[in-house]
Amino acid sequence: MPKASALVHAEVQQFYAHQMQQLDLAKSGPWAATFTEDATFDVPTLPEPVRGRPGLVAAAERAAAALADAGERHRHFMGMLDVTERQDGSLDVRSYTVVYASKIGGESRVHRVCVCEDILVRVEGELQVTARKVTRDDLP
Amino acid sequence: MPKASALVHAEVQQFYAHQMQQLDLAKSGPWAATFTEDATFDVPTLPEPVRGRPGLVAAAERAAAALADAGERHRHFMGMLDVTERQDGSLDVRSYTVVYASKIGGESRVHRVCVCEDILVRVEGELQVTARKVTRDDLP
Amino acid sequence: MPKASALVHAEVQQFYAHQMQQLDLAKSGPWAATFTEDATFDVPTLPEPVRGRPGLVAAAERAAAALADAGERHRHFMGMLDVTERQDGSLDVRSYTVVYASKIGGESRVHRVCVCEDILVRVEGELQVTARKVTRDDLP
Repeated sequence: MPKASALVHAEVQQFYAHQMQQLDLAKSGPWAATFTEDATFDVPTLPEPVRGRPGLVAAAERAAAALADAGERHRHFMGMLDVTERQDGSLDVRSYTVVYASKIGGESRVHRVCVCEDILVRVEGELQVTARKVTRDDLP
Repeated sequence: MPKASALVHAEVQQFYAHQMQQLDLAKSGPWAATFTEDATFDVPTLPEPVRGRPGLVAAAERAAAALADAGERHRHFMGMLDVTERQDGSLDVRSYTVVYASKIGGESRVHRVCVCEDILVRVEGELQVTARKVTRDDLP
Repeated sequence: MPKASALVHAEVQQFYAHQMQQLDLAKSGPWAATFTEDATFDVPTLPEPVRGRPGLVAAAERAAAALADAGERHRHFMGMLDVTERQDGSLDVRSYTVVYASKIGGESRVHRVCVCEDILVRVEGELQVTARKVTRDDLP
């Protein structure tokens, strides 16, 4: 696979900055809208993979409620995007996400270090995630 | 607001890399020069917002002196830049900054996790910050 | 020196994402191939600078073996790339690298905070590192 052009790399970086900020702002609907209608979402915090936006919204809302209960803020800091472009124009992106947790009135710390493997496609010109698989460095 | 083009996103990333490195290198004057003459700077470490470069230089010099006294180095690691372009060409940038602290001869750690909201403008073609508001995740 | 164009900045970001992922995946050969044949590599973890790919491969293999023995995963998260272009087209890049360590079955943490100073050149159009000097924030 050829490497993605520099321009695509920057576009993908912008896409993730916006996507992850929506999640951290607990904007579950706009966050879910950055995935395709039938996206698969396979992350260690869920007992089984989710498929489709309603499941994504529900997962994000549960996570936001749990954080509010715990009096914490989380930030998903993604970087090191290794982007490769497929012949059909879809993108494979393997990247790192560090999740920082801050206790409100307490300390900030590294919560999780994850590897994220996404497939991005264009829907009416806009990037969307059609498949996400996340692994955690601290799990076997 | 329309999203900024990929090219502008990469330009903003370069701008911040240079700006924050100047701060961490204690180059207070060159750092302050990345703000407009009348920039406002509202951060949790200052008792009240600063306006203008002389106040920025003074704040940076105090911070550098305090670090030297403590035998520590700080690095401002900014990322997740969500950039939107206004009709007049100025840019709204909401991003995350993690500040790492290292005790010289000791350990490195996460010191602060912050959200930074900037307005960037062009002065003779070069980006400058005209307004910065920083919030800390660990504060109410 | 003039600042690098936005496009070059994004290209360099992609280069490092791929390079560091190869290292963290213990792909020593492909990682070493992102350096020039005669590259110099001066990092705090080595007793003296390495010159050339065979030495790079050996260093990477030793590091991977030590991690496997310790039951840990490391991720090199590089960012804040301050890129400047020389007249001859080579690039000076000063950046930050945070190394995260995760004990498998344990916790994730900040391991090291480093400053990386590279010179990049083009070999048949592809970027390669011809000189790297890394310093650790916790060392004098």
